[in-house]
Amino acid sequence: MTDWLDAVRWDAQGLVPVIAQEASSGDVLMMAWMNREALAQTAALGRAVYYSRSRARLWYKGEESGHVQQVHEIRLDCDADVLLLKVTQLGHQPGIACHTGRHSCFYLRWQPESGAQPATTGPAEGRWLSVEPVLKDPESIYR
Amino acid sequence: MTDWLDAVRWDAQGLVPVIAQEASSGDVLMMAWMNREALAQTAALGRAVYYSRSRARLWYKGEESGHVQQVHEIRLDCDADVLLLKVTQLGHQPGIACHTGRHSCFYLRWQPESGAQPATTGPAEGRWLSVEPVLKDPESIYR
Repeated sequence: MTDWLDAVRWDAQGLVPVIAQEASSGDVLMMAWMNREALAQTAALGRAVYYSRSRARLWYKGEESGHVQQVHEIRLDCDADVLLLKVTQLGHQPGIACHTGRHSCFYLRWQPESGAQPATTGPAEGRWLSVEPVLKDPESIYR
Repeated sequence: MTDWLDAVRWDAQGLVPVIAQEASSGDVLMMAWMNREALAQTAALGRAVYYSRSRARLWYKGEESGHVQQVHEIRLDCDADVLLLKVTQLGHQPGIACHTGRHSCFYLRWQPESGAQPATTGPAEGRWLSVEPVLKDPESIYR
């Protein structure tokens, strides 16, 4: 009875994007990828297991950092090609999902160029500002 | 000064995944894709403009449905290959992001098979349950 795995529309590489959202705060922590086996393992273990495209193998989130994600809910979208996990980010308080030692991977916020008008007359100008603190030195996370 | 667009690591198709999150509730509404022009337009207009892979053109979210997403923040992740928008979902109250007439596209929740033990002994069994109501008949959204 693994029909539920067949319901997912895996892409040509056999992967789908997966959003991890902190259950308690609603913060979006990261996006990663899963293949069929990663999703099966996630459901079986109740912890996030992704597929690392760079390492080309299953990635038990927290296997090196200790920053395991406990999974409360697994959601699938209307097109069956994106997953959403509601998680508790374990291993540090507050939780650290990002390899940079930050709470969330989405720590760069687009900032319009100061003085720029809402650009109805040309391309928007701006830059990416880091807006979240490093909670733990990455060197102490990955020994 | 569009260096900020160059900072994004566009994939081989010139796209990146984009998560839309409701600013007020924290709900993850949908995931879509952007190319460089979609992101530039989103920043310039303050409303979500995606790239539709199926239609192979820019998709001004709400262009047919009226369900426009007003954009409050644009975030970029640590690897510069995923975007996160914080939005207000306009056009209906509560907001409808999904083409099925639901608030969020992530309305399918994985439900373990009843009676199944946490599967330490085999693959997890379960099914996808629809857990969010249809707020508006899609036929009345897309005339």
